[in-house]
Amino acid sequence: MSSTTHPNISVLGQHVLLELYECPIDLLRSPMHNERVLLAAATALGAQVIESRFHTFSPYGNSGVVIIAESHLTIHTWPEYGYAAVDVFSCGELDLAAGIEELKTGFQAKRSEERYIERGINLSEI
Amino acid sequence: MSSTTHPNISVLGQHVLLELYECPIDLLRSPMHNERVLLAAATALGAQVIESRFHTFSPYGNSGVVIIAESHLTIHTWPEYGYAAVDVFSCGELDLAAGIEELKTGFQAKRSEERYIERGINLSEI
Repeated sequence: MSSTTHPNISVLGQHVLLELYECPIDLLRSPMHNERVLLAAATALGAQVIESRFHTFSPYGNSGVVIIAESHLTIHTWPEYGYAAVDVFSCGELDLAAGIEELKTGFQAKRSEERYIERGINLSEI
Repeated sequence: MSSTTHPNISVLGQHVLLELYECPIDLLRSPMHNERVLLAAATALGAQVIESRFHTFSPYGNSGVVIIAESHLTIHTWPEYGYAAVDVFSCGELDLAAGIEELKTGFQAKRSEERYIERGINLSEI
């Protein structure tokens, strides 16, 4: 996989942890909607989709993953809390802001939180 | 999905970001080895495996995901840097320490870093 070079440090992956709150329950309960939104986000990111897999659990809640050439997107939903945990992991030059916006609007989140985390920091180069 | 309740806050998921450094290149390059280790880690966690999907990219590097009833494990490897980024996302009562140990030993990492992140914190309850 490719690497992104910053001054003094070498970062191999960019990982966004996205918390989506106060989403309509029907959107979170639908695995088809989940897959549609994650694929739309992958397109907005400019990613190359390899495959997607989605599962529904009892009594409620879905899990899904979209494997992209540049790493992955995942989602886990708790419809009963109006909440979804979404991850966007990228090792390429993707448009993270566009992808995140697609996810927020796709699930109609009234509140959200994003954490950007660098993965694979080569401490020996700092 | 189920929730874990702590004093004063409601946490829905536990997410471990694991960085594995200085791993033997042959172990990181083998998608079969990657899958074997992640499935062993799922067993050590006490998780219920739903399915696993692994891909190899050119010129090198693998991506893999194990979907478990309690959420997921993912891996992305950069053999050329001796590095793997592994995620363990759990919404259940799993043995995270045992799973992490299995991942470290399975890839013979000489150095590693773990970050434990709570997902889905209900701020209104703090």
